[in-house]
Amino acid sequence: MNTSNRTKVVIVGAGFGGLFATRCLRGADVDITLIDRHNYHLFQPLLYQVATAGLAPSDVAWPIRGIVRTQQNVTVVLGEVIGVDTDAREIITSDHRMRYDYLVLASGARHAYFGHEDWEPHAPGLKSIDDATAIRRRILMAFERAEMTFDPAERARLLNFVVVGAGPTGVELAGTIAELARRTLAADFRRIDSRSARIILVEAGPRVLPAFTEKLSTYAQRALDELGVEVMLGNAVTACNAHSVTIGGSEIPTSTVLWAAGVAASPASVWLRAESDRAGRVLVQADLSAPGHSDVFVIGDTAAVMDSAGDLVPGIAPAAKQQGRYVARVIRARVEGKLAPVAFRYRNLGKLATIGRKSAVIELPFLRLSGRLAWWLWGVAHIYFLIGVRSPITVASNWLWQYVTYARGARLITGESRVESSADKS
Amino acid sequence: MNTSNRTKVVIVGAGFGGLFATRCLRGADVDITLIDRHNYHLFQPLLYQVATAGLAPSDVAWPIRGIVRTQQNVTVVLGEVIGVDTDAREIITSDHRMRYDYLVLASGARHAYFGHEDWEPHAPGLKSIDDATAIRRRILMAFERAEMTFDPAERARLLNFVVVGAGPTGVELAGTIAELARRTLAADFRRIDSRSARIILVEAGPRVLPAFTEKLSTYAQRALDELGVEVMLGNAVTACNAHSVTIGGSEIPTSTVLWAAGVAASPASVWLRAESDRAGRVLVQADLSAPGHSDVFVIGDTAAVMDSAGDLVPGIAPAAKQQGRYVARVIRARVEGKLAPVAFRYRNLGKLATIGRKSAVIELPFLRLSGRLAWWLWGVAHIYFLIGVRSPITVASNWLWQYVTYARGARLITGESRVESSADKS
Repeated sequence: MNTSNRTKVVIVGAGFGGLFATRCLRGADVDITLIDRHNYHLFQPLLYQVATAGLAPSDVAWPIRGIVRTQQNVTVVLGEVIGVDTDAREIITSDHRMRYDYLVLASGARHAYFGHEDWEPHAPGLKSIDDATAIRRRILMAFERAEMTFDPAERARLLNFVVVGAGPTGVELAGTIAELARRTLAADFRRIDSRSARIILVEAGPRVLPAFTEKLSTYAQRALDELGVEVMLGNAVTACNAHSVTIGGSEIPTSTVLWAAGVAASPASVWLRAESDRAGRVLVQADLSAPGHSDVFVIGDTAAVMDSAGDLVPGIAPAAKQQGRYVARVIRARVEGKLAPVAFRYRNLGKLATIGRKSAVIELPFLRLSGRLAWWLWGVAHIYFLIGVRSPITVASNWLWQYVTYARGARLITGESRVESSADKS
Repeated sequence: MNTSNRTKVVIVGAGFGGLFATRCLRGADVDITLIDRHNYHLFQPLLYQVATAGLAPSDVAWPIRGIVRTQQNVTVVLGEVIGVDTDAREIITSDHRMRYDYLVLASGARHAYFGHEDWEPHAPGLKSIDDATAIRRRILMAFERAEMTFDPAERARLLNFVVVGAGPTGVELAGTIAELARRTLAADFRRIDSRSARIILVEAGPRVLPAFTEKLSTYAQRALDELGVEVMLGNAVTACNAHSVTIGGSEIPTSTVLWAAGVAASPASVWLRAESDRAGRVLVQADLSAPGHSDVFVIGDTAAVMDSAGDLVPGIAPAAKQQGRYVARVIRARVEGKLAPVAFRYRNLGKLATIGRKSAVIELPFLRLSGRLAWWLWGVAHIYFLIGVRSPITVASNWLWQYVTYARGARLITGESRVESSADKS
């Protein structure tokens, strides 16, 4: 939409990758168009806190326009990308076509249902603010309905919560739901005992947090046991509907299945007609450009990037940020006619996951940590990395308040103005 | 749902009236069932802040179960009341019938469209959290679409914001939208100047804030002028559709019409087959009972209560609280076989309204205040009266942050995972 003669950079997606690419082009002699289908940047690592009623949506999401308002070379466009015309060098949205000299695709990923897309309505995943408020409604409504029903079997069904996938998100969800049931809601109901809820964490692999070391997995498993989460390892979901989920042949009646397994990249590889891996990630060159398109870069969860050991760079925020920063440097160098850095190199800053409100595991390159200290480090790191999210003071004071009182103030059932009728259960 | 032999009190609605009736029956020898169709109590006086992206929903709403958790004689039921069987003394919800010995109907009000209910989709009112997030989405999407369109007439249309009704809510909405356009969003867009937005406040009566003294109305009018709000007095809406609103014969093209005019009580009078005023409010006895039903009380916005001068008690939070407290006292006295207070007497604690972030008007029985001091008093009063909403510290720190930075952090477009297509404009 710019009409100047400056180099046009189009960046698709305002997640960590796209946003850092944008920010690192501050002051460069380019016109940047940043396209996202939402008007907010999402601090995804804390999204599970919204789904479990601990934080408000606006605690973990921040308007994109607010973040880049002082960066004069950026135009923000709210829009949905539907294709790329690499011959004409145009990006196609549902409303417009836009010319680019450099294109950065940072369009992220969604959950994969491994060919069972019909499970999605019954087992929602957690990627956007609307996902999170829908999951929050589902969890809270299960308790409400359990309180209202006179049928003991139905009550037991409603108090079964199943989380599929024991990566960081699954572990965080299961741990927090357990605390919600055992502590936060314990005094809220008169006819049910919310503490009797079963929280089941299902993992197809042999251990929880498979990307971490075995020792940290063992620690996490013990922490989950202590919270009363039942962990089912080596079992995959074989069926899923509105009434139950079937895990390794045994059917568990439930109204709440949450999906935290598998990743499907955005259609970037389809738009570019580029080779992709099984998850749909574009197999990029060493400089993160798409094969055959030196002016198109693909970064973050929608790219398959290898580290120096030949392993896939994990789909976590620090990796996306590094890639965003790298492509910004490449583009700036090319625009200025300077030598661009040859290849992206991933710097492993570690991984972390939290289990409820008292334990976490942190795996740094030369250090492994678990327990309460790890939890506090995790908390401080996350507040530190909240770029621009509301006031960090507000989030911190919210957290401290929660930590002291066990209250979860964002316990609102929204999005449906009325109580769902029983017909809606089917 | 209680099976004990204690006196059964059913309270419908967890607004200010119902909640205060409940709280004032703490420790009484009764079983209380508190029914609401939402799981939260709403601090309605600040709801316009959610609609204008200043506060998060969970800043102004609090789970009912959390509020009454320590009050052992209360059972909370999430449900929609659809009728009352006064012969059987049962309340009918969509799921159950429930026996009562005493019934308190505090079921509130919605907006009235004066026979033009077809205007509602084009001119939403502000009563629930979902209303507020829908209005927030509408306001923010208008700016986004204006930025994206290439048609100057459409751009001008999208930047017209019309608020109908100049009572406190209308004045607060118009003032805050003006500040949003003139300050908060001023640096956010590249193609439009958000400061050029027109904010039009329409009032059928001869002055803004008609319930206040003339002097305060004049002050409010001047404060609105300074914020750049165009006030159209003595004009009623005669037509309204997705493209425009017609006011006194002249058509204003717009995509954002907000309705803050007129009140329609809940169907309590229909349930009871009781006489009502034009707004549908039950004409109650001096002890707030419904005529012919000494065991049924009607309070708050759904009751027409007269003060000692014969004027209608206003539909504001302090009035509802006083009525809730009064009926609790009556019920407790009857249960204990003591003398009940004969008649409800309204104690006028004053009215207040705020215009943007620097002025307010306060009308107390013996004092009238306007200006910046009034604004600060208004702020302190509201934080003070936030019963249990998250942590008041959080809300206060949020506000202070906003006040200093003009940021409105809750500027999220949620509820639709994708950008609306242009088809949706019609």
